[in-house]
Amino acid sequence: MAHKLYYAPGSGNSFKPALVLRQTGQTCTFQKVDVLTGESRNAEFLKINSRGQVPYLITSDGRGIGESNAIAWYLAQGTSLVPDDPVTRAQILQWMIFEQTSLEPNISPARFFTHIVPSLRDQHAAELPGWLEAGSRGLGILDEYLYPREFMVGDGYTVADIAVYGYTHLAEQGGFELARYPAVGRWMQRVQSTPGYANLDALLPS
Amino acid sequence: MAHKLYYAPGSGNSFKPALVLRQTGQTCTFQKVDVLTGESRNAEFLKINSRGQVPYLITSDGRGIGESNAIAWYLAQGTSLVPDDPVTRAQILQWMIFEQTSLEPNISPARFFTHIVPSLRDQHAAELPGWLEAGSRGLGILDEYLYPREFMVGDGYTVADIAVYGYTHLAEQGGFELARYPAVGRWMQRVQSTPGYANLDALLPS
Repeated sequence: MAHKLYYAPGSGNSFKPALVLRQTGQTCTFQKVDVLTGESRNAEFLKINSRGQVPYLITSDGRGIGESNAIAWYLAQGTSLVPDDPVTRAQILQWMIFEQTSLEPNISPARFFTHIVPSLRDQHAAELPGWLEAGSRGLGILDEYLYPREFMVGDGYTVADIAVYGYTHLAEQGGFELARYPAVGRWMQRVQSTPGYANLDALLPS
Repeated sequence: MAHKLYYAPGSGNSFKPALVLRQTGQTCTFQKVDVLTGESRNAEFLKINSRGQVPYLITSDGRGIGESNAIAWYLAQGTSLVPDDPVTRAQILQWMIFEQTSLEPNISPARFFTHIVPSLRDQHAAELPGWLEAGSRGLGILDEYLYPREFMVGDGYTVADIAVYGYTHLAEQGGFELARYPAVGRWMQRVQSTPGYANLDALLPS
């Protein structure tokens, strides 16, 4: 039996494990969960993941893994995306945690209420400036860090790049000006040039 | 040369790598950074970690690792705190990310402005209810998850327990009522009964 990935179309978090699967040539069953119609909160899905969150992976032996970066790490283990060096591995975790605390919590809701469901934008008008400010601070840190580097950690492309790229490359849709972060822009082009790269819509059928 | 851990006294994040070091019997140089007097933002420390954050580890070969859970993972690798099973490892990451997104960002500031620097509490009075509400939601998820379990993931005590325990066991100091989470309480007692356990003040000299 193959792994089964529950994913949401359009989601930067769901994109991460899907890109790992594509670039490592692994087979996996994809199961769409329509978050917009409440499918991630219905009784059927809550039996699979009681947290009601996607992406979620059921492994080939029937165990569950949540959190996009943990799923991406799991799928990338044993490939060049997770190098053997213990310090490099820890630095991958470091940037995965940075992504989930400084980028995703700001870029994702700004994008959701600007681009995915703009009809709800006015209801969240008071929160938008905070997301834009905190997300911009995170992108600034990333830009400074990437300035002298080719990829996030170590000597090449790793699952840290995929994790950080997940929402960064969608930030314009949330109202962030990526032109202000030139090192981020050059790095995104390098990610897009890696073998097997495909964009979000190609990887996550709606 | 030994690893060098930059830590802040009283910090739940600094406590995590310190407990790993103690329970795995590793030697490490400890260097106190007094966050309250701005030492983490002075020129000397910014040369070590440009993010100005503690804990921070300089490994024995001179490389830097940030983010408490990434440092804890690094120090725990090769011990029973990080089991070999790939799914268990991914589930450890899953709960480390949960801790940094649902628990720490709420419990830590509530505790800081209630217990560590109560003189600043009034300045943050408007934010406190949000931290208490979101942190309580996180503790509720943790309580439900732990109800049928001995430890966070797999069959025994892992670095996921240390990561999640870091701020959870300090939550009362932030105004959270831990009596409302009985499974969390029983689990904290199990963590405190593991060999080599020591409390925060013993591990992080002020």
